[in-house]
Amino acid sequence: MTAPRRRTLHLNAFLMNAGHHDAAWRHPGSSPERVTDLRYFQELALTAERGLLDSVFLADGLALWGKARHNALGGFEPLTLLSAVAAVTQRIGLIATASTTFNEPYHLARKFASLDHISGGRAGWNIVTSGTADEARNFGREEHLEHRLRYERAAEFLEVATRLWDSWEDGAVVLDKERGVYADTGRIHPAAHRGEHFGVAGPLNVPRSPQGYPLLVQAGSSEDGREFAARYAEAVFTAQQTLADAQAFYQDVKSRAARYGRSGDDIVVLPGIAPVIGSTEAEAKALERELTELQVPEYGLAQLSGMLGVDLTGLPLDGPLPDLPEERDINGNKSRFTLVAELARREDLTLRELIARLGAGRGHRVYAGTPEQIADQLEEWFTGGAADGFNIMAPVLPTGLTDFVDHVVPELQRRGLFRTAYEGGTLREHYGLPRPANRYAGAAA
Amino acid sequence: MTAPRRRTLHLNAFLMNAGHHDAAWRHPGSSPERVTDLRYFQELALTAERGLLDSVFLADGLALWGKARHNALGGFEPLTLLSAVAAVTQRIGLIATASTTFNEPYHLARKFASLDHISGGRAGWNIVTSGTADEARNFGREEHLEHRLRYERAAEFLEVATRLWDSWEDGAVVLDKERGVYADTGRIHPAAHRGEHFGVAGPLNVPRSPQGYPLLVQAGSSEDGREFAARYAEAVFTAQQTLADAQAFYQDVKSRAARYGRSGDDIVVLPGIAPVIGSTEAEAKALERELTELQVPEYGLAQLSGMLGVDLTGLPLDGPLPDLPEERDINGNKSRFTLVAELARREDLTLRELIARLGAGRGHRVYAGTPEQIADQLEEWFTGGAADGFNIMAPVLPTGLTDFVDHVVPELQRRGLFRTAYEGGTLREHYGLPRPANRYAGAAA
Repeated sequence: MTAPRRRTLHLNAFLMNAGHHDAAWRHPGSSPERVTDLRYFQELALTAERGLLDSVFLADGLALWGKARHNALGGFEPLTLLSAVAAVTQRIGLIATASTTFNEPYHLARKFASLDHISGGRAGWNIVTSGTADEARNFGREEHLEHRLRYERAAEFLEVATRLWDSWEDGAVVLDKERGVYADTGRIHPAAHRGEHFGVAGPLNVPRSPQGYPLLVQAGSSEDGREFAARYAEAVFTAQQTLADAQAFYQDVKSRAARYGRSGDDIVVLPGIAPVIGSTEAEAKALERELTELQVPEYGLAQLSGMLGVDLTGLPLDGPLPDLPEERDINGNKSRFTLVAELARREDLTLRELIARLGAGRGHRVYAGTPEQIADQLEEWFTGGAADGFNIMAPVLPTGLTDFVDHVVPELQRRGLFRTAYEGGTLREHYGLPRPANRYAGAAA
Repeated sequence: MTAPRRRTLHLNAFLMNAGHHDAAWRHPGSSPERVTDLRYFQELALTAERGLLDSVFLADGLALWGKARHNALGGFEPLTLLSAVAAVTQRIGLIATASTTFNEPYHLARKFASLDHISGGRAGWNIVTSGTADEARNFGREEHLEHRLRYERAAEFLEVATRLWDSWEDGAVVLDKERGVYADTGRIHPAAHRGEHFGVAGPLNVPRSPQGYPLLVQAGSSEDGREFAARYAEAVFTAQQTLADAQAFYQDVKSRAARYGRSGDDIVVLPGIAPVIGSTEAEAKALERELTELQVPEYGLAQLSGMLGVDLTGLPLDGPLPDLPEERDINGNKSRFTLVAELARREDLTLRELIARLGAGRGHRVYAGTPEQIADQLEEWFTGGAADGFNIMAPVLPTGLTDFVDHVVPELQRRGLFRTAYEGGTLREHYGLPRPANRYAGAAA
C-alpha cells in the first residue's frame, strides 16, 4: 500500500515588465530598459523554472492604458513572446492572456494549439472578456460590450474553440507513404458551428496538440465570472484581501462546479499575492516604504479612477473617497471595483493611503516580511481552505522573483509544501489536471 | 573613389512542411513526421542562415484545405512558429503570411511589432487578402469577400497598421527615473482612424520596433495585386513560368511604383523557383520523375480544380482540360488561374501532364538540373531584368534546402552573385531597403 499523495502548492509567476508595483520601474532592482528585450523575459522564465514553478503568466490588454507617462507600459504581445520563451525553456508552463471579446475563435484556437505544439504541451490560456472602452475603440466600437453579453460571447467562444481542438482526433495522422494516405480524414471533423456570435465551419488546420486543449484559466470573480469559471476553468486567478474572503470565494467556486458535472478538484484556485521580501521584517517594510515613496500620485489617482469608474482627478490626496456607484452600474471589472471600495470603507483610507495600498498589487494582497513569514502566510491560506496555490506577483522584477525562488521556495520545500523536482512534462501535469478526452474518440471506430 | 557596389541576388527560403512538391511527404528525403516539431523548423532556418539567405518565409491559409488525406497539411501558425525560430537564429529574416481580410489591424500591427522586437529587426509580413470560401466559412461568412473589396480593405488595413507602427516615435521612452517620467507622451500619438472598414483609436501598446515597420511583402499578381504592390510592397513574390513573362512583370511592377512617388528600386522582385537538384542532370531528372510517380492523382485533380474554379473530378486524366471561365469571373487567385490556363493551352497538356507540371511548384517555375545549371538559370533571370532574387521552393525538405545551400549557394558566390557574409543585422538591411521614417518625427519638436 502506498500512502496517499500529499497535496502540494501550485505556484505561478505572474510577469509584468518592471514588476507589479507601479513604481517598480524607478527602483534600482528593476530593469525597465529591458521591457522589449526578449532575453529579459527568457531570463525571468528560466529563473521561475529553476524554482520549479508551475508556470509563468502574462496579462494583456488591447490598448495602451494612456498612462505610459508614469509607468513602464507597452511591450510584447503575449503569444509571440511566450513562443520565443518556449524555445529556451524545458518544463515551465506558459500562460498567455487573450480576449474572447476582440478575437475570433479560429485564430485563437489555432495560436494556442500552435504554442502547445511548440512548447511540447506547456500552453495555457487566461480567458478574459476585456473590460475597457479604450480597447473597444481599437476594434471599431465606441462603447464596450455589456458585461453579461461579453460572458455569453465567451461561452460560445469556448464551445467553438474546444470543438476545433477536438477536430483532429489523436492519431488522425496515419502517414501511410505506401498507400499515399497522410491523414485518415474520417478522423478529422468539421466544427459546423452556427451560433449567435460565431459561424465556424472547421476543421482546425492544426493537428491535436500534446495537451489536447491548452490549460484553461480564468480570472473574473464577478457573478458571471464565477459561473464561467465553474463551467470551463481549470485554474482560477483571483484577488482576495483577507483569509475569510478567500475561503468564501474558494468554497463558492468549487461548489458551483457540480452544476456543470465537474468536481471542485477539477479547478485549481490561485489567489494573487505580491510578496515584498526582506532578510528581516524591517528590511521588507523598508522596501515597501521605499516603493511607496517612489509612487507618482497622478498615476495612482488615474489607476484608481479606472478601477472605480469615477474621475478622481484634482481631489485632495489626504481626503476621503467620494461617493461611489453600485457594482451593478460598473461595466468593467466588477469584482475589482467591489474589492477596492470595500477595502477603502473597511479601513477608512484616504486617497493617498488607498493609492499606497494598491500600488504593489492593484487590489491583490500585498505582504511584506521575511521568507519564513511569507511561507507562513502561504501555508495558512493553503491549509485553511483558501487556496490551492498562488499567483506570485513580484513587486520588482527581476529581483523580487529571484528572491522568491532563492529564499521562499526552499522554505516551502523544507515544509513539504512544494515539489523538489518536476514530475510531469506538461502544464496540465504540473497542475495535476487530466488531458481532455477528444469528443469524437472511438465514435468513428 | 570606391567602385559602385555590385548588385547581388536576394534569396528567400520558402518553407513548407515536407516540401513544395505535393508528393514530397512520400519521398525518403522528407520528414513529414516532424511537421509539428519545432526543432524541425528551427533546423531548416539554421540551414538557410548557414547559407546566408536573406530570409525564411511561411505561407498561410485559414482553413484546412480538405486534402489532408493525400498531403502533409496542417501544422504551426506562422507568427507563433517564427517567434520560436527567432529565439535560436541570429541574422536570417523571418517572413510570416497574414490575411488582411480575416484580421484586425490592431492585432496584426502588434504581433508584427512584437516579432520585430523579439528578433532584433528581422520580421517581415507577407500581406495576403485570402482567396477561398473555405476560409470565409471559418469567420462567419458564407461567401468570400469580392476581389476588389478585399484589396480596398487591404489598403485601409495598411494605412492603419503603418499609423500604429508610427504611434510611438523613436525615443518616446525617456526613462527619467528621477522625475518619474517613463515615456514622453507628447511623442506617443493616437491613430484616430475612422474609415470604411476599421475604426482604430490607437496608439499601439508596443514601442516602435527595430525596423520601424516589418518588411512589407506582397504576392498577388492580378491587376489589383500589382497596384497594391506598387503602392505598399517592398518585396514581391511572384509565379512566372517564362523569362519573357517574368521580364514583363518585373518591368510593370517597377514602373507602377512611380504613381505612388516611389522608385522601382524600392521594390525587390522575387519570382519563385522550385529547383530539383542533382549532381548530374540525369540524377536531377530522375528525382523529378520519382516525385511525379509518387503523386496521388485525386489530390492533383482537387488542387487543379481549386486553382481553376472548375470541378474536374472524374474527368479522364489523359484527356484535355474542359472549357474554362474567364479571369474576370474568378474570385480567388486571379493571376494563378491565368498562369495555369495559359500553361495548359500553350503546351497543349493533358490533365495528367498538367498535374505533373504543377506538382512541384503549384504554378511556380520548376527547374531540374545540376547546381551549375540552376545557377545559370538564376543568373539569366537576374541579369536579364526578370528578377532581383528568388523565392527558393525546395521540392523536398529538408534535403532540397540543404542541397541548395551546400551546392547552389557556393556556385553563386563563386560567380560574385551572392553575399559571402551577412553585412546587415535586420531583414531590411539584407534586402538593401531603408528603415521607414516615422511620420511624426520632428513634428512635436
